[in-house]
Amino acid sequence: MTLFYPNGQPYRDTGIRKESMLQSAVDYGHRGMTLEEDLNVTNSYYIQTDQAVIYKKPTPVQIVHVDYPKRSAAKITEAYFRKASTTDYNGVYRGKYIDFEAKETTHENYIPLKNFHRHQVEHMDRIRRHGGIGFIIVKFTKSDEVFLLDAVYLSECWSRSLESGGRKSIPKQLFQDKGHLIPQKYLPRIDYLCVVNDVYF
Amino acid sequence: MTLFYPNGQPYRDTGIRKESMLQSAVDYGHRGMTLEEDLNVTNSYYIQTDQAVIYKKPTPVQIVHVDYPKRSAAKITEAYFRKASTTDYNGVYRGKYIDFEAKETTHENYIPLKNFHRHQVEHMDRIRRHGGIGFIIVKFTKSDEVFLLDAVYLSECWSRSLESGGRKSIPKQLFQDKGHLIPQKYLPRIDYLCVVNDVYF
Repeated sequence: MTLFYPNGQPYRDTGIRKESMLQSAVDYGHRGMTLEEDLNVTNSYYIQTDQAVIYKKPTPVQIVHVDYPKRSAAKITEAYFRKASTTDYNGVYRGKYIDFEAKETTHENYIPLKNFHRHQVEHMDRIRRHGGIGFIIVKFTKSDEVFLLDAVYLSECWSRSLESGGRKSIPKQLFQDKGHLIPQKYLPRIDYLCVVNDVYF
Repeated sequence: MTLFYPNGQPYRDTGIRKESMLQSAVDYGHRGMTLEEDLNVTNSYYIQTDQAVIYKKPTPVQIVHVDYPKRSAAKITEAYFRKASTTDYNGVYRGKYIDFEAKETTHENYIPLKNFHRHQVEHMDRIRRHGGIGFIIVKFTKSDEVFLLDAVYLSECWSRSLESGGRKSIPKQLFQDKGHLIPQKYLPRIDYLCVVNDVYF
């Protein structure tokens, strides 16, 4: 359905509305914000307040064709999404290497392991071997709870899932027993470093 | 031009062809290999031999339009290259966070500072403040010499370049005086960790 302004002009989404929605979403406890958006805001806050230097890596893209028009920027006209061989987030905090993957689940009591890839599990095993801190951050959207769970548990669940009849998901109970609930605040939104402080230092 | 397999599926670069190209390049003493290619091979070697976990980050791309054709992969049809706000390489080595940028210069005695961006210099300043190891790797292609230089010197040159009449490049002499020549070998090609061992541990 096309909507029209009183002046007869068709309504078009300019993105401005979206930002004001985000703003109002914040006021109402940021309903509708994705975990990724919340973590990006959180990481920016950590950088601005000089607490840590942690970034989300760019989305890996296989570039097939690029146009180089005269007098304007190179334009990628054919590209495909690639599967990440590492995790999405990494950086440095209090001299330590930090590495994590973040996922949401709509399931009430578990997150399917298909949210992660073998390469990512292997990557996090390596990180631990080399003295880095590796974990996953999982948001259970139904209850609006966000947990931090050390990568060793992901690795264990992954190994068990490969056995015949092995469970193909991580139960919420494991997050409650071995993980840590991350406080959600106005700023920083998902204060995972406060958990990292308690768990790893 | 899109190529098709006999089954009608479009051909996509899987990287296999590229690797075999790299392989043959190796056989000829890696003539024409860029610093980036050499570092990718080096980092793969470090991972395979379980010495370090260091990756090049994906190229940052601003995705504008994606097609979702039925029964095949999502295709990005409009995207643009973005300027990186961080450095290209990071990871963990012997429990330490490692972060660096790599550049080539065809100039015999200097590398212009315009090869780096303000955001990158600020990023490396932050890395040092938080206890990470930050440096640049620069290849002087004329002499085929590759140097490692701590990020503090990049930062100093950058600050001086902003003064009126300040030099807009880093002289090779600074690499020779304060930096470290990286041994080039068959494998690993650019053995920068052997320098990191000496300088930072």
